[in-house]
Amino acid sequence: MSLPLFVQNAWSPSSGESVNLLVQDGIVQAVGPNVNPPAGPSNILQAKGMALVPPFVNGHTHAAMTLFRGYGDDMPLMEWLQTRIWPAEARLSEEDVYWGTRLACLEMIRSGTACFADMYWHYHAVARAVEDAGIRAFVGSILIDVAGEEQARQFQYLAEKNLEENSRYSTRVQFSLSPHAIYTVSGPSLSWLADFSQKHQVLTHIHLSETRHEVEECLRQHGMRPAFYLDQKGLLSPLTLLAHGVHLNEDELDLIASRGATLVTNPVSNMKLAVGGVFPYARAHHRRIPMAMGTDGAASNNGLDLLQDVKILALLQKHADGDPTVLPASQAFEILTGSRAPLLGLSGQIAAGEKADFLLMRRHDVEITPEHCFTSNLIYAMTGHQVDTMVVDGHILMTDRQIPDQDEIRHEVSHRAERVCKE
Amino acid sequence: MSLPLFVQNAWSPSSGESVNLLVQDGIVQAVGPNVNPPAGPSNILQAKGMALVPPFVNGHTHAAMTLFRGYGDDMPLMEWLQTRIWPAEARLSEEDVYWGTRLACLEMIRSGTACFADMYWHYHAVARAVEDAGIRAFVGSILIDVAGEEQARQFQYLAEKNLEENSRYSTRVQFSLSPHAIYTVSGPSLSWLADFSQKHQVLTHIHLSETRHEVEECLRQHGMRPAFYLDQKGLLSPLTLLAHGVHLNEDELDLIASRGATLVTNPVSNMKLAVGGVFPYARAHHRRIPMAMGTDGAASNNGLDLLQDVKILALLQKHADGDPTVLPASQAFEILTGSRAPLLGLSGQIAAGEKADFLLMRRHDVEITPEHCFTSNLIYAMTGHQVDTMVVDGHILMTDRQIPDQDEIRHEVSHRAERVCKE
Repeated sequence: MSLPLFVQNAWSPSSGESVNLLVQDGIVQAVGPNVNPPAGPSNILQAKGMALVPPFVNGHTHAAMTLFRGYGDDMPLMEWLQTRIWPAEARLSEEDVYWGTRLACLEMIRSGTACFADMYWHYHAVARAVEDAGIRAFVGSILIDVAGEEQARQFQYLAEKNLEENSRYSTRVQFSLSPHAIYTVSGPSLSWLADFSQKHQVLTHIHLSETRHEVEECLRQHGMRPAFYLDQKGLLSPLTLLAHGVHLNEDELDLIASRGATLVTNPVSNMKLAVGGVFPYARAHHRRIPMAMGTDGAASNNGLDLLQDVKILALLQKHADGDPTVLPASQAFEILTGSRAPLLGLSGQIAAGEKADFLLMRRHDVEITPEHCFTSNLIYAMTGHQVDTMVVDGHILMTDRQIPDQDEIRHEVSHRAERVCKE
Repeated sequence: MSLPLFVQNAWSPSSGESVNLLVQDGIVQAVGPNVNPPAGPSNILQAKGMALVPPFVNGHTHAAMTLFRGYGDDMPLMEWLQTRIWPAEARLSEEDVYWGTRLACLEMIRSGTACFADMYWHYHAVARAVEDAGIRAFVGSILIDVAGEEQARQFQYLAEKNLEENSRYSTRVQFSLSPHAIYTVSGPSLSWLADFSQKHQVLTHIHLSETRHEVEECLRQHGMRPAFYLDQKGLLSPLTLLAHGVHLNEDELDLIASRGATLVTNPVSNMKLAVGGVFPYARAHHRRIPMAMGTDGAASNNGLDLLQDVKILALLQKHADGDPTVLPASQAFEILTGSRAPLLGLSGQIAAGEKADFLLMRRHDVEITPEHCFTSNLIYAMTGHQVDTMVVDGHILMTDRQIPDQDEIRHEVSHRAERVCKE
């Protein structure tokens, strides 16, 4: 039983007023100008000079890849994978993944991300890291069966086992399925995953339509484009999270809209790896397709700060469409805070009855002076460094930018990264 | 006569060693592992844990436009200019420009920029702000003569006067000519400026080839593309700084290369305003055209942090060329530090005999852990927030991220921005 949390004198961007906020048992009890402090003992956050903002949602990442930040930039994709990433990943222990994910969680807390959808190896290492860090995640082990049926049976076993064992964690840690892609998971396995996802009502997180090569190969092998192929296997549903979606055509967008799947755009990674296209934001928006944004892994970004990435997303869409009015700050804010992606569980609202996840953001930094429009400043001028305080599930994970175990995590990762990446 | 400055135990990214650095009279006297502190009194900077890095050069901005940060984003260009920027600019006083420029200088110091090329109104307001802030700038009043010969005579008078009066400032404040563009300055005035620039050997800073419309109009009116037109007027020389250059063709690049002019790319502004093209980096690089990068004004960016922008520059070039190897971190570093743009006066080197301009950057932040490659981290993972200390002309402008008059400037600008932008 934890003490109530009382936030005093925060500034609300939506009302323009000073508000107080009362939290109990991980839920916002009340928020508004006239909310009184609780009668008994409580934790109090003084929020004068700070904006009360919903936290951010990272719809696609490989958190532990912080270990490989800056390890081979500016390289051709296959050379990078073959000479750097894959050999290093082969050396990763479960503890390496734990610490890499802890570092990612640190970075996310420092930049306001309360929830992420992860896809990586070593399920329990990631789950433990999320549990210990205090944030929320959809954890999914990468599922691949290029080696054949034995590998398929193995991942089916692991999916069952991880789902069952996930009960050891709090509700912040959500089990998800993470088939890697349509070209690394067989047709029968995709069908099996579709059944499993429906039966257990769990999120399925998959890379889709990231490169032209993927589309061409799908057409060649299956005679249809990737979204249609995935749908044929039963894997396009309101539980599906599609990462990238760069090369989707109109028919695929119609199909995704009709199935209620969620798209996640990763603008920085797409540009850095030069995937040769741009996420069709305006067309997806027009169809009201649920949508989030992701950083992808730190190896192809090289950071996890969604405030830096949301600016790049807005810039890229304006550039690609030749129209400065595309993806305005108000829409970028909805994407950033997850309110356009209900599948990921955060509402983008701070209101009575909602989960007690919120940020206090500094309003008086040089970089955001003057404040003609808070939302404009948030999207185009802020970075994660303006996040002062983060509360997730009613717990203060950071305040005054201080996080208790930061230095330990940094040192641990530095040593492990050096070992894992030795050539 | 100021005390010598001694920097102790900085980490040098080029040598990988710990070095000391001795500064006297604005010049680096010595740098290396075995440099001893001076015998007499000195100022000492402890730099353990920090990297010694050359400061950054912002090749194109309108500094005082920090006043308009976030004042009308996501709008069509002409509507934005006509309903927001121009009416607000008409209300700007000289003191408004002074304080707006002070805020810009603060932001630049906080993000490691030691020198910028400015183009705005109220010459002495900008010059005084640069002088007071302690950084370097090429200051140029916007020259336009769309109103006819009287306006042309007026700006000629002002150019002469400002050049002469510039002697009241230190050498950090450099006079420059800033004709706005080929479509706002008449042919005879461009020729006059070319003569003036050569006679007094002063830099000429002009927008060129920012939009397709500019190219089409130039072809229609003058029967040639913008770079050729500018050359015909005598204004393409080693003293010319060309901002944008988005729509240059091969012949124009050849011409610019042969004349030795410097190009300045502004990736964020170009994307935000959706100018419909991408700066031809690889083709300009191949021709060894001198090159810098700029933020453009805060109204179209909305910040002045070159570390954020250099990442976007590298991403955009990879994206546009469909090649992840384009504009690698090492080249981005050269552009960022001005070593590819000798016209702007900083060498990108920290060595005995060079100007004492340098940064101490934090190496142990979460966002840049691990450190597989310092340059990768600098270009792809750092923001201005990792700049701990900035020294310009031998003077400490910021250390431990503290700048004395920061709050006063912020308050002053907030009040002025509110007045100027009232609708």
